Amino acid sequence: MCPHQNGDSAAADKSEMVAVPLQNGHSNGVNGSSNGTQPIKKRGTTRAPDAHLKREPRNPYAARASDLISNISNFNIIESTLREGEQFANAFFDTKTKVAIAKALDAFGVEYIELTSPAASEQSRLDCETICKLGLRAKILTHIRCHMDDARIAVETGVDGVDVVIGTSSFLREFSHGKDMTYITKTAIEVIEFVKSKGIEVRFSSEDSFRSDLVDLLSIYQTVDKIGVNRVGIADTVGCANPRQVYDLVRTLRSVVSCDIEIHLHNDTGMAIANAYTALEAGATHIDTSVLGIGERVGITPLGGLVACLYAANPEYVKAKYNLAMLREIENLVAEAVEVNIPFMNPITGYCAFTHKAGIHAKAILNNPSTYEILKPEDFGLTRYVSIGHRLTGWNAVKSRVEQLGLALTDDEDVTAKIKELADVRTQSMDDVDTLLRVYHSGIQSGELAVGQKEALDRLLRRHKAEAQGRAASPSLERDD
Amino acid sequence: MCPHQNGDSAAADKSEMVAVPLQNGHSNGVNGSSNGTQPIKKRGTTRAPDAHLKREPRNPYAARASDLISNISNFNIIESTLREGEQFANAFFDTKTKVAIAKALDAFGVEYIELTSPAASEQSRLDCETICKLGLRAKILTHIRCHMDDARIAVETGVDGVDVVIGTSSFLREFSHGKDMTYITKTAIEVIEFVKSKGIEVRFSSEDSFRSDLVDLLSIYQTVDKIGVNRVGIADTVGCANPRQVYDLVRTLRSVVSCDIEIHLHNDTGMAIANAYTALEAGATHIDTSVLGIGERVGITPLGGLVACLYAANPEYVKAKYNLAMLREIENLVAEAVEVNIPFMNPITGYCAFTHKAGIHAKAILNNPSTYEILKPEDFGLTRYVSIGHRLTGWNAVKSRVEQLGLALTDDEDVTAKIKELADVRTQSMDDVDTLLRVYHSGIQSGELAVGQKEALDRLLRRHKAEAQGRAASPSLERDD
Repeated sequence: MCPHQNGDSAAADKSEMVAVPLQNGHSNGVNGSSNGTQPIKKRGTTRAPDAHLKREPRNPYAARASDLISNISNFNIIESTLREGEQFANAFFDTKTKVAIAKALDAFGVEYIELTSPAASEQSRLDCETICKLGLRAKILTHIRCHMDDARIAVETGVDGVDVVIGTSSFLREFSHGKDMTYITKTAIEVIEFVKSKGIEVRFSSEDSFRSDLVDLLSIYQTVDKIGVNRVGIADTVGCANPRQVYDLVRTLRSVVSCDIEIHLHNDTGMAIANAYTALEAGATHIDTSVLGIGERVGITPLGGLVACLYAANPEYVKAKYNLAMLREIENLVAEAVEVNIPFMNPITGYCAFTHKAGIHAKAILNNPSTYEILKPEDFGLTRYVSIGHRLTGWNAVKSRVEQLGLALTDDEDVTAKIKELADVRTQSMDDVDTLLRVYHSGIQSGELAVGQKEALDRLLRRHKAEAQGRAASPSLERDD
Repeated sequence: MCPHQNGDSAAADKSEMVAVPLQNGHSNGVNGSSNGTQPIKKRGTTRAPDAHLKREPRNPYAARASDLISNISNFNIIESTLREGEQFANAFFDTKTKVAIAKALDAFGVEYIELTSPAASEQSRLDCETICKLGLRAKILTHIRCHMDDARIAVETGVDGVDVVIGTSSFLREFSHGKDMTYITKTAIEVIEFVKSKGIEVRFSSEDSFRSDLVDLLSIYQTVDKIGVNRVGIADTVGCANPRQVYDLVRTLRSVVSCDIEIHLHNDTGMAIANAYTALEAGATHIDTSVLGIGERVGITPLGGLVACLYAANPEYVKAKYNLAMLREIENLVAEAVEVNIPFMNPITGYCAFTHKAGIHAKAILNNPSTYEILKPEDFGLTRYVSIGHRLTGWNAVKSRVEQLGLALTDDEDVTAKIKELADVRTQSMDDVDTLLRVYHSGIQSGELAVGQKEALDRLLRRHKAEAQGRAASPSLERDD
């Protein structure tokens, strides 16, 4: 679908949307219970007479009812921390760690967990069997080369499905496995039919799909779709794709195959989250993620980032599907296992994700958090902060703190100016700010200070500081403030 | 432009592309030097007869010559580390740090440097004046509220331009400044005309543009365009936009105004890089960045990430424009100033960005780096690594190390199996791997070991270990290997 077609006038509410007949027999009133006693329902729809009165503030470029192909609110996560993530340079997962990660992901609610090929090493095979026996609600997959040797080992481990991959780009055909498309197709059919014969799911994916010949790609996907593969996979193995390319390729593929479509996106240029989002808009059904995005090089679409953008699109759907408050715990578990820090700018869990600083932001956030937040921190078990002890602060933020402290001040402009002046030299801690507010408040209350008496405030602050130092020097003295 | 129109058959080389007349008088042969002696050049173009022989491997969804509106290879960076970045919770930049960051950004080659409003604090004003006097090649901007008080202070600082912003969404109109569109438009005109009268650049931006009424937005942009604003700005202040929304809004705006279009994108759902890329595709001309993306909450489009995706699209253009080898130094400078770590998954400079691990990847990378790399590490003054001491290793990677060490081995399968076996217990360091290779090599050379003698290899390794421990226990003994 051309995105411009979404730019037309939007339906303001459901009553304005055109009902579309569904394939499985739902009707829009044409067939069904017209029994003669009711007036004949004419064809054709029109805008409700009072619809213009119901218009609400809205995003002019939000998804429309016409986005029938979009799976933004109908998707599966294939969590690959225990496969792609194991290819992260720092990763070494022993059995205990693998089990802990698998259980945490299952408790979070991911639909699939993908494991390293049992053909990689003996321990990899044993760990795969162990995780299959945990009785998780997530389906367990393993990821193998398109080769019968690997497939025979994989189907014996107890997995619910096998993800098969082979490189189809000219780069990989020439410099990696050296096979042509005829050989690839023949082997793919053999492996898929073998896995299917064992009664488990099978996915066929190309590798480096965005640098593969489009006709080769569509041809092999169509072939494997016809023999009943469960999913086909697109992989941006080198991280070269951008959102509009992803939209186009998935949209084209959606018209060629009837099976599910999975996508695996590397993050070399930082676009893996957006590419995943766009793939769902174009009709993809399954997205590969790893916790914190760990994988080869800078990794793939991170679980937390994907959840952030899908939550922003449809909070209720995402909240119903996943245990969002577990996200931070899972990220900490994996970060510790691979010895990395949670990036400071991580969506949701980055340590300033819900901290508001500039005066203009703080003012609005205190009035209504939706002004500057599209994610609700409480939905993720997190907290919002308003930072005030800096030179970009404003008096609305200061007033909010005055109220939190239970102080009675009618005008905070003098004290706000003082905070900005002090913070021009160094950022003030919450303690510094609170002290300043208390001194100002008690000065006003006692009559020692009036609005506009900047020098009087400085004098009171100096006296307070001297007293505090005196107490610190003789800590046995009783404090009286 | 509908992205599907890019999916048609691609021109394989320049000779196949249709020349398009340019407005400024360039001709495609219709006007000009046809002096009668040369054969008349007929209208109409056709594919060259041998074009099908020249087809090279290509990305089926790459940009096409028909993407006339795209500015992927014609853009400006407005670097806002010293404005948006100062709104990062950890940020406090003293004058010396601001000057160091401004000089580094200028040496890197950004087109614009944006500074905090001189109205924010006295020191902010002084620092703004100091940076204007540095004589940098980058244009210096400051960022102010849409208010005459701020504008009067800004134009006295010596800046090359003023970026004006006001909230236009119903959220911000209701919960922040409380003004209606009539008031906003009137004030915008007054401020813009005042700044223009001082002979410097002026930009007008809405805030929270993706939650503003589309008609209000287009109306005010058209108004300020008509009075000669240099740029209009779109801001995804809350980080709610996705790439297709960005494409649509920029594309629509591109048809409404003739001035430049800037975009400022927050990263709350991790899509700020992709949104910036897509904005350029839709005709935006200026992108706001900050180093490492620092800013309110999780920040905005990071400089490094933007450079990564634009380099991937057109390496020669980006290499000619910016001093890419400085990127790491600038990121280190800012990371130190705000006391954060470079995220491990940062594009380009993340510490594993050029590390290849899985056997299948390592094999291909050793044959041809383009197989799994779209960014050349050497263009950024960085180095590629192939990790081999882990259970996902393969014998091509091992063979490469054997060759680097100058060892003569014709078959490494035994030793590869041994590395995988040891790495199943714990990841082997480069030192461990080298030792194993040397012991194996000397065993084969001396005849103590033959291919397939797994037990003999274990015995040699035990002996080597015992000897190494012996030497460590009596370090005064002379080493002989």
